[in-house]
Amino acid sequence: MAQALDLAAAAGRAGEVPVGAVLVAGDGSVLAATANRVETDHDPTAHAELLAIREAARLRGEPRLPDCELFVTLEPCAMCAAAIAFARLKRVTFAAYDPKGGAVEHGPRFFAQPTCHHRPEVVGGVEESRAAELLRQFFQALR
Amino acid sequence: MAQALDLAAAAGRAGEVPVGAVLVAGDGSVLAATANRVETDHDPTAHAELLAIREAARLRGEPRLPDCELFVTLEPCAMCAAAIAFARLKRVTFAAYDPKGGAVEHGPRFFAQPTCHHRPEVVGGVEESRAAELLRQFFQALR
Repeated sequence: MAQALDLAAAAGRAGEVPVGAVLVAGDGSVLAATANRVETDHDPTAHAELLAIREAARLRGEPRLPDCELFVTLEPCAMCAAAIAFARLKRVTFAAYDPKGGAVEHGPRFFAQPTCHHRPEVVGGVEESRAAELLRQFFQALR
Repeated sequence: MAQALDLAAAAGRAGEVPVGAVLVAGDGSVLAATANRVETDHDPTAHAELLAIREAARLRGEPRLPDCELFVTLEPCAMCAAAIAFARLKRVTFAAYDPKGGAVEHGPRFFAQPTCHHRPEVVGGVEESRAAELLRQFFQALR
């Protein structure tokens, strides 16, 4: 999560919403370490989690990554939560909760839907205060 | 939708779940015409809608596409519905309903969530029977 927080901070300095993610394989190796690139890439889907999953799946040559776990600095949105389920990730650990756009503990609570076909283990609130502070400072600077 | 159905049929012949999408700009020009490429690209996020949005946003150099509308042969899942909202699409027209994985009229009903920040116009069931038949034949052949 420390690496994901560093990536988030760097993204914030580049004008992106500061969210970082690290995808770790079952053997402990890091398959992908990413941050938000929505504005940089002109891509509304370029959230840290989606980029990490795409990168790791490309490296593996395989769209499903059942031994892997994801560390991300913000509660995933519905897009990323569904991508996590499609990738069959084993576990997701996130830092800050996101009552406005999160879809794990808020809003659609995607993994609790009967139509969700894979439910990873979920751990929320790890390093929450540092991740939340990064986001608070970013949005305050925009005003 | 006819073009999206042709793309879906071709994807099915290539071993992908047969779903196609066409993204049309406000002036009527086609910005992207895509089909599912999850297995081909080893990418769990390579749904037709996500690929169409990414391609159109890249062409425009802009992550938001508020004048655009999407035609897709299957009710979008939560990942694609959230991507549609992030891209600020004006309208979404889909063919077959998807009670098992759809997230517009089923499951999380993403656009109806209070945490959804942009709600496109939605039209479902256009050319429903042709799209559903493609999917039925595809999954029957897998058994």
